[in-house]
Amino acid sequence: MDEGDRGNQRRIALTIQYDGTRYAGWQLQENANTVQAEIERSLAVLLKEKVRVVASGRTDTGVHALGQVIHFDIPSGIPLDRLCAGMNGILPGDIAVKNACEVPADFHARFSAREREYLYRIYNHSLRSPFMLYRALWVIKPLDIAYLREASRHFIGVHDFASFCKKSSAAEMNTVREILSFDIGAEGNELSIVIRGNGFLHNMIRIMIGTLLELHKTGEAPGVIRTILERCDRDCSGFTAPAYGLYLRKVSYDPPLASYKPAFPDDYLY
Amino acid sequence: MDEGDRGNQRRIALTIQYDGTRYAGWQLQENANTVQAEIERSLAVLLKEKVRVVASGRTDTGVHALGQVIHFDIPSGIPLDRLCAGMNGILPGDIAVKNACEVPADFHARFSAREREYLYRIYNHSLRSPFMLYRALWVIKPLDIAYLREASRHFIGVHDFASFCKKSSAAEMNTVREILSFDIGAEGNELSIVIRGNGFLHNMIRIMIGTLLELHKTGEAPGVIRTILERCDRDCSGFTAPAYGLYLRKVSYDPPLASYKPAFPDDYLY
Repeated sequence: MDEGDRGNQRRIALTIQYDGTRYAGWQLQENANTVQAEIERSLAVLLKEKVRVVASGRTDTGVHALGQVIHFDIPSGIPLDRLCAGMNGILPGDIAVKNACEVPADFHARFSAREREYLYRIYNHSLRSPFMLYRALWVIKPLDIAYLREASRHFIGVHDFASFCKKSSAAEMNTVREILSFDIGAEGNELSIVIRGNGFLHNMIRIMIGTLLELHKTGEAPGVIRTILERCDRDCSGFTAPAYGLYLRKVSYDPPLASYKPAFPDDYLY
Repeated sequence: MDEGDRGNQRRIALTIQYDGTRYAGWQLQENANTVQAEIERSLAVLLKEKVRVVASGRTDTGVHALGQVIHFDIPSGIPLDRLCAGMNGILPGDIAVKNACEVPADFHARFSAREREYLYRIYNHSLRSPFMLYRALWVIKPLDIAYLREASRHFIGVHDFASFCKKSSAAEMNTVREILSFDIGAEGNELSIVIRGNGFLHNMIRIMIGTLLELHKTGEAPGVIRTILERCDRDCSGFTAPAYGLYLRKVSYDPPLASYKPAFPDDYLY
């Protein structure tokens, strides 16, 4: 496409959901199926042209999304509701488009993101549940929610999270991040841990969850989290909790996507 | 086993859950895998003997269970919590034992059942959800819950449900049943329809749901349900709603299973 065509380009932001079980994560790979590959394939079929999409962030193998945001440019004048329904008609049943809006040309799903919200689900029961398979971490021993809340409090704020980052990644980057909130809810036998931050390191949430569960098991003082943070050493923290309990739930922008006349009401997602 | 061994037999009642997606229903079949076959296989491996199990009722292909009850007799002295955990270690991930108790020799999972409770889930959204795939019926057009409640009210009580029964079955049996309650709850984009009765005809709940949705679509008066009941003719009612929205949620006994010292607290199921 030559430069002269750029004037017809529309930048589209989509909110998508996926059950990550069958996929080798978000990002395109040579020898494995990924969510990005399925999304780009559906756009190619629907619009009859190759479209490259950009996500708010990668998700690892097995990680789910309730509100991943992606953007891409298309010259096509297809109405947004037809774009959503059309892609869903092509995509496999474990990936779905949930909303769409036309955004300014300088909107970027990753770099414009102001805040990300993740959910980690734990099924706390002596016996496993068929309906939580690949959807939540199964923990047998009864969890002391007051303890988990007390310990997780130490994550909130600006810290160097080098102890909570995959080793290979930590060496390459600034590991200071800010956790805005860390809420632990309980309903029936399920714990829902909702974590908000402006950005997260590789495996950061899964290592935070694994560390909380290990400290809970050994009965250490909740304040040990503070010491682990200070050490800046992955060897001090706990195991990496499994991917299948993790959901990218929401990505926030300023102004919010809702301000760009989305195809469907914004409160309509789940 | 000769009659002399009977004195050692213990009758066990189990509460089990399953995601019915992969199974040709509950009951044993020659050329298809069923939940009963998996349960009996797990008992054979664990107890090293052949055990025949009886369920509160069959569930059809694709139907789920949150609280199916089964019984069987074993001579083994295995503790109940170990029986549950041991079976779960053998069963595939989409079937799980959730509780166990030792019941009197005259307890029968099917004939002693006093009441059955089913759940039908509807996902009401313009765009499908990956997390509702094979778990709920997807309905695109917004549903008028007040209308559905008004229409479903006519099902409650003792009626001849011949219009709401698979044709081949209706000819063979008494089609009078009593519906004790029919509650429609809504949360977010999900409708949860909970139906209680002493017993149900083949496909009865799925035809009731399909009929409600068809009347809603055509905008007929809610009272038409009464006319359809009076006709006693399957051709007057609506389509059979898909199996994957249906869950056998609870089977009640008198005295309740909770009175037989179950291995786990009874409020501990979901």
